[in-house]
Amino acid sequence: MDLKVASGDRVVLMDSDGRKIAVVVAPGARRVGGLGVLDPSPLVGAAFGSTATVGNRRFTVLRPSLLDLLETLERRAQIILPKDACHILLGCDISAGKTVVEGGAGSGAMTTALAWAVRPGGRVITCDVRPDSLRQARHNVERAGLAEVCSFREADVTAPGGIPERDIDAVVLDIPEPWRALDGAWEALRPCGHLACYTPTANQAEQSVRALRGRRFIGVRTVEVLEREMAVVEKGIRPSFEMLGHSGYLTFARKVLETL
Amino acid sequence: MDLKVASGDRVVLMDSDGRKIAVVVAPGARRVGGLGVLDPSPLVGAAFGSTATVGNRRFTVLRPSLLDLLETLERRAQIILPKDACHILLGCDISAGKTVVEGGAGSGAMTTALAWAVRPGGRVITCDVRPDSLRQARHNVERAGLAEVCSFREADVTAPGGIPERDIDAVVLDIPEPWRALDGAWEALRPCGHLACYTPTANQAEQSVRALRGRRFIGVRTVEVLEREMAVVEKGIRPSFEMLGHSGYLTFARKVLETL
Amino acid sequence: MDLKVASGDRVVLMDSDGRKIAVVVAPGARRVGGLGVLDPSPLVGAAFGSTATVGNRRFTVLRPSLLDLLETLERRAQIILPKDACHILLGCDISAGKTVVEGGAGSGAMTTALAWAVRPGGRVITCDVRPDSLRQARHNVERAGLAEVCSFREADVTAPGGIPERDIDAVVLDIPEPWRALDGAWEALRPCGHLACYTPTANQAEQSVRALRGRRFIGVRTVEVLEREMAVVEKGIRPSFEMLGHSGYLTFARKVLETL
Amino acid sequence: MDLKVASGDRVVLMDSDGRKIAVVVAPGARRVGGLGVLDPSPLVGAAFGSTATVGNRRFTVLRPSLLDLLETLERRAQIILPKDACHILLGCDISAGKTVVEGGAGSGAMTTALAWAVRPGGRVITCDVRPDSLRQARHNVERAGLAEVCSFREADVTAPGGIPERDIDAVVLDIPEPWRALDGAWEALRPCGHLACYTPTANQAEQSVRALRGRRFIGVRTVEVLEREMAVVEKGIRPSFEMLGHSGYLTFARKVLETL
Repeated sequence: MDLKVASGDRVVLMDSDGRKIAVVVAPGARRVGGLGVLDPSPLVGAAFGSTATVGNRRFTVLRPSLLDLLETLERRAQIILPKDACHILLGCDISAGKTVVEGGAGSGAMTTALAWAVRPGGRVITCDVRPDSLRQARHNVERAGLAEVCSFREADVTAPGGIPERDIDAVVLDIPEPWRALDGAWEALRPCGHLACYTPTANQAEQSVRALRGRRFIGVRTVEVLEREMAVVEKGIRPSFEMLGHSGYLTFARKVLETL
Repeated sequence: MDLKVASGDRVVLMDSDGRKIAVVVAPGARRVGGLGVLDPSPLVGAAFGSTATVGNRRFTVLRPSLLDLLETLERRAQIILPKDACHILLGCDISAGKTVVEGGAGSGAMTTALAWAVRPGGRVITCDVRPDSLRQARHNVERAGLAEVCSFREADVTAPGGIPERDIDAVVLDIPEPWRALDGAWEALRPCGHLACYTPTANQAEQSVRALRGRRFIGVRTVEVLEREMAVVEKGIRPSFEMLGHSGYLTFARKVLETL
Repeated sequence: MDLKVASGDRVVLMDSDGRKIAVVVAPGARRVGGLGVLDPSPLVGAAFGSTATVGNRRFTVLRPSLLDLLETLERRAQIILPKDACHILLGCDISAGKTVVEGGAGSGAMTTALAWAVRPGGRVITCDVRPDSLRQARHNVERAGLAEVCSFREADVTAPGGIPERDIDAVVLDIPEPWRALDGAWEALRPCGHLACYTPTANQAEQSVRALRGRRFIGVRTVEVLEREMAVVEKGIRPSFEMLGHSGYLTFARKVLETL
Repeated sequence: MDLKVASGDRVVLMDSDGRKIAVVVAPGARRVGGLGVLDPSPLVGAAFGSTATVGNRRFTVLRPSLLDLLETLERRAQIILPKDACHILLGCDISAGKTVVEGGAGSGAMTTALAWAVRPGGRVITCDVRPDSLRQARHNVERAGLAEVCSFREADVTAPGGIPERDIDAVVLDIPEPWRALDGAWEALRPCGHLACYTPTANQAEQSVRALRGRRFIGVRTVEVLEREMAVVEKGIRPSFEMLGHSGYLTFARKVLETL
């Protein structure tokens, strides 16, 4: 890897409180995060891992990780959080070379995670009924430098023929009624292929599980993932007071040709 | 991907309760999981995703996912669990092509997850002071078909020169006193490279954080990850009664050249 | 309080692992917990807080607390656990002198906690459609020495007129469909009186909340209470591996004469 | 209980969002919660459980419960929360007639809960080294109408003779180094009497446990209590996004005369 920032690089600036700002190091003044309008091109040549002054503030200059990309995503609505995204990657066995259909683009957080994980050689097909969601997701994926892995399609994965692909390794659904996409997902998946549904309410998870039980899917399970940060303070270590109480339930299953 | 089991394939057999048994489909009678002694070679030609009778019991025949591999690992002690492994993969930005040094082999669960994630093109160097841990880890990695990505070294990563590698993308430590390996890890990592420590007690996490704060690392944070399964029963959905209360704390950090 | 065990006293024997056995110190051989058949009367005169040998094993002799009583309850089914019982006591503002109607006796765990909390001067009326539940609850309440505070009635609190009492301070429901008892509970409660529903599934909690919202109740809220034990081990402190993932949801509300 | 508000009564006003304001209904304009300066005496004669207009806003008029008192407490620092207070009440077997020594007054939240629970016939002796904490606690206890049960003493419970009382039923410690008060607490407690320590960090809990293990205490255990609210929304029920990640660890123990 290059040790110094080159023109065109995406970098992440982290301040002393751990806050992150993503910026593309290209010439020309533009609005950057909470820093106002500035020209980031003086960062060219800075060593990754060194500190720099940008807009009168001091930052560490970082090469972006997937987590940096997810945490600096431009979003309009609630996104699938990193803690859930990494569980979906594992639960759907996403790795280099895999092909994934995503139903529900959101702001492109999960799209970004999927695209990052299937490289090289893989493919992510993201479907959404809303053009603005697709635009936002595409914007974030391009910003992350992952555009060549992704395609975006305005389509309803719950409609008949909504997923025309076949022999897909995984289908990830972040839509209000995932149970309506199960028949199409089954057709699209290869045998032993993986399905994940991300749903905010317990009722949606329940309805997904009941629908999966009635079809040729196995290994059906729903989990919630809680992440709690620890704080190291003067008198020792304790959990952080701030905690997210909930994001969504994750329901996993796997296509089979026949059930026991 | 091949749709049918071939001789030499690793498959996972799942029963109707979701329990999994891993088996290599090769001729010859041998002991297989809880099934007793049998010859699994009749599975050759079975379709992945179909059902089959093995040792008088019915199973679904699955192509193994990483999660299957982790859940059927041969272990002697507590392993890093899938819920934690996927957070470490994300927190250390592990992806295809990366090079990772692992301090503490355990039973090879994290080694397996790392090896799976760095393919193709990556490399995992696993160090341990105990030859039997290295043997167990190597056995599990070979069993998972990931041996070509891994090397195993009997070495103490807390000793001077314990990590001779340089420009490493990530260092993952599962040892009792990870703070003793921090100077060596810093030397081994590339700028912006990632560090993760897995520690059972809050005190170990605290001591890791305090040691990282005094060195050229940023983004220091400790989390615990709780996963709770949901049960869909007659009267609706509720959390499962059974839950693992704790596995370990995950401490993450990133090498920098200078701190703010 | 008396410092020594007298004949007829209820005592709790705690072994070195913290396990508790409840026993009434009266003459005559009988079956005692896991100790077999023995005559506990030699305990007469032992100092509370001292150690004694009973049935060849060593124990500490304790004066029973409410928690001891709940933990040594004779039960047939899942009981309301201490962690939930104390939240119900607070959420329903149970204190000395209050009158409480309990719908659903279970094994008498909540009855015991309520009876303990309303003394002196209060009253607990426990209703159940099943005579065997009432018998079990009465047995446990008598065993706890709280019988004079409780009355038991074979009645369906969801039926019209199922709760004939008026000006009740609190109604505690541990029945499958608590929403069917809300009109009767409203009639029975004094203005500002408290209601609690204990329900295993999220759906039951949801249906309770929706029914309460449509009636003259305020302060409607559902919580779950998680209790996690910490273990102090050689290398420091960590959460216990064993944890109960779920017991039930607690829904609270308060009767008003009119809503905003 | 009286059904209507009388002059001098403490009432709680709850708005349609569930927010609570405590007010004493006495003549004369004064500052009331977030309502500005007003004279609450027109509330005299209002029925408890009815609605009323106060300062141009509509409220439900409630008779205060303990939970109302705790939630409307005037505080300067972090208080012991209701979820922890009810566990301490149960864990220390606090009930009518008991005598409790409290070390560390805080803002008087736990004092209020203890005083409420020992009535009638009980007694709470609250000790603190800071006169301003004692003043604040006394103010809140008086406001709750519980002053006759409590006494306040400027004293250091960790100093020799800091707890001169004897035959105490329970000692509740909310001080930074509770282990320094254990010998004094042991002397003050009756045999089988209860001890609780509330500590923010894991290290403080650990040190408390280790000190208790070396003394004549049994049943030593540390727990953390997590309370998560559920939200009933259009699409069903889900945990609330907002959650408090941590308050403190609760360590319980019981005095014995000798250990096994």
